[in-house]
Amino acid sequence: MPELRRDPVTGRWVIIATERAKRPSAFIDSTPTNKIDAVNPFKPGNEKMTPPELLAYRPPGSDPDSSGWWVRVTPNKYPALEAEGEIRRVGLGMYDMMNGIGAHEVVIETPNEGVQLGDMAPEQVQEAIWAYRDRAVALRKDPRFQYVLIFKNYGTQAGASIWHSHSQIIALPIVPKNVQEKIEGARRYHDYKERCVFCDMIHQERNDGARVVSYGERGVHRLLSLRLLPFEVFLLPKSACFFSDITKSDVTHLADLLQKTLHKLKLAVNDPAYNMIIHTTPMNLGSVPYFHWHIEILPALSRVAGFEWGSGFFINPVPPEDAARYLRHAEMPGDVDTVPEGEDVSRTSRTSKARIRKFRAG
Amino acid sequence: MPELRRDPVTGRWVIIATERAKRPSAFIDSTPTNKIDAVNPFKPGNEKMTPPELLAYRPPGSDPDSSGWWVRVTPNKYPALEAEGEIRRVGLGMYDMMNGIGAHEVVIETPNEGVQLGDMAPEQVQEAIWAYRDRAVALRKDPRFQYVLIFKNYGTQAGASIWHSHSQIIALPIVPKNVQEKIEGARRYHDYKERCVFCDMIHQERNDGARVVSYGERGVHRLLSLRLLPFEVFLLPKSACFFSDITKSDVTHLADLLQKTLHKLKLAVNDPAYNMIIHTTPMNLGSVPYFHWHIEILPALSRVAGFEWGSGFFINPVPPEDAARYLRHAEMPGDVDTVPEGEDVSRTSRTSKARIRKFRAG
Repeated sequence: MPELRRDPVTGRWVIIATERAKRPSAFIDSTPTNKIDAVNPFKPGNEKMTPPELLAYRPPGSDPDSSGWWVRVTPNKYPALEAEGEIRRVGLGMYDMMNGIGAHEVVIETPNEGVQLGDMAPEQVQEAIWAYRDRAVALRKDPRFQYVLIFKNYGTQAGASIWHSHSQIIALPIVPKNVQEKIEGARRYHDYKERCVFCDMIHQERNDGARVVSYGERGVHRLLSLRLLPFEVFLLPKSACFFSDITKSDVTHLADLLQKTLHKLKLAVNDPAYNMIIHTTPMNLGSVPYFHWHIEILPALSRVAGFEWGSGFFINPVPPEDAARYLRHAEMPGDVDTVPEGEDVSRTSRTSKARIRKFRAG
Repeated sequence: MPELRRDPVTGRWVIIATERAKRPSAFIDSTPTNKIDAVNPFKPGNEKMTPPELLAYRPPGSDPDSSGWWVRVTPNKYPALEAEGEIRRVGLGMYDMMNGIGAHEVVIETPNEGVQLGDMAPEQVQEAIWAYRDRAVALRKDPRFQYVLIFKNYGTQAGASIWHSHSQIIALPIVPKNVQEKIEGARRYHDYKERCVFCDMIHQERNDGARVVSYGERGVHRLLSLRLLPFEVFLLPKSACFFSDITKSDVTHLADLLQKTLHKLKLAVNDPAYNMIIHTTPMNLGSVPYFHWHIEILPALSRVAGFEWGSGFFINPVPPEDAARYLRHAEMPGDVDTVPEGEDVSRTSRTSKARIRKFRAG
């Protein structure tokens, strides 16, 4: 019997339909095949192929747009929004329109075209995270913008057009609908329970254990949530509204978790294409007691088709408990962090599994 | 300068970014290549390869699950939801769960494996629409269901696993989020303006003309709206909340428009994979004054990537005015319905274009 579960933040439902996994086309093969770009504008030496850099971590005294950098941020050459100008809102009859002011930047995460985020040394991942953070801080100061979205497309199936490891940053003059939906869901939960939905999620997931890949005592947690897609991973800090306020020790911790999570995903699910999203609190909200910034990693293992477009409701053939177990046991040389620490998770996990089984049987 | 436009129903924004069309990977090639199924469970003679039929239009006196039918509906062999059982809702800590009760059916729209909806005789399309309608009426009577979603995946890139022309019907125990969002948007608009957003849309689009592919004096209209995707087409009736209440003359009119629209899409945009969705009013609402059933046709020309996942906000490199012009002029042998009828549309269209140009330049 399939099972419906609801995301406590957005209120969206997901169908956990393990039977669907037997269907011939249950999963798409999204393993990237082209692993080097024929023309690579992000490679050291090709700095002139991108617009002038906005930020680079490079040796002191070296020239902008010369090689030698280890992380480099430039405007997107094909921007979805333009950085210059004032925002003008107009109505055209019943339609609301706005000119397309916003920032669209590219974070080149390494000078090495052969290595991806999941294979980098954690120190290099830290540098990439610092670049996300430095640009988020800069963009937050621009009064035209209401939201900064950091995201990564890895692999063609996930929308990447260049292989060289990079993420993108878009600053928007509005708070996007998916973020509003999360904020409103989290606020409603807080109004009703007088507790934070993300804190409750951390508490329940830690006690249960079945959907946890791993977590630490402090700082950034790594969870698998009840969300939309097969093998979707949710990284959640214990607190903190704004990603741009991330502390130095959180960066160290996050870099380690992020690199390990991506590496495990590569080992466990055959190097899938994926999208990564960093969601933070909108700028027009202060430090609210009901929201944590967080990261979603969305493997491109299933297609968005008519049902998903029509309902906003997803069919997931892999229960998150199975995905978490699979990721926990993904072999990683020298990795000792494959089983959640803390209390006797295996016992509570069994209890939970029995509960879910019972629910299914009913 | 890119431009932001807001969907007046859902409140979602779309970025019209024509510059992005110059990007090497602006469009994906989603032309289906495999045009015959190696094993085709939907072909006459293979009736035993599907679960027993729920409905078939076939000669009087012929046996169920024998050949001779011209439209046939069966349960999906790999259902996302199961049809038997009572709905049980439970909480697991903070999480809401439900067992996966629902219907998941397949409408085989023709016995001929070589012909798709856009190439069929309008009479055959009418028969397919009657089958959608008959099943919607039957499922609406089941008190366990709150919503019936009819959709079509055409081509692998749009999630189809079988080529033989078919659509799917899913009856759900909840109203899906995307429908709720539309209902709430339409209700808010009606509360504020005391007018129906869909009626206003028909009125404005008719007067403007720039985004119209074609329309008729009565019954079902064909519009291109300000929605999310390049070449997205919106078919909207003048009134009527429930698709299942469609009249005989509306079916005739709709079949003709639908077949022509799909055929033009095939000619104009190189036979793209697409998803088609029929949205209707949820069953728990009566005939409300603010909602019309409608059809969305969503070509799979762009990928859902990190930005779209993270924001729920889409980047469309083709302004709907350009898409409409392109579709209006798609060559169709014997087609006289390529220019909107009625008032002097070309003049208002020019005015609108000038306004949009002016807005862009500002």
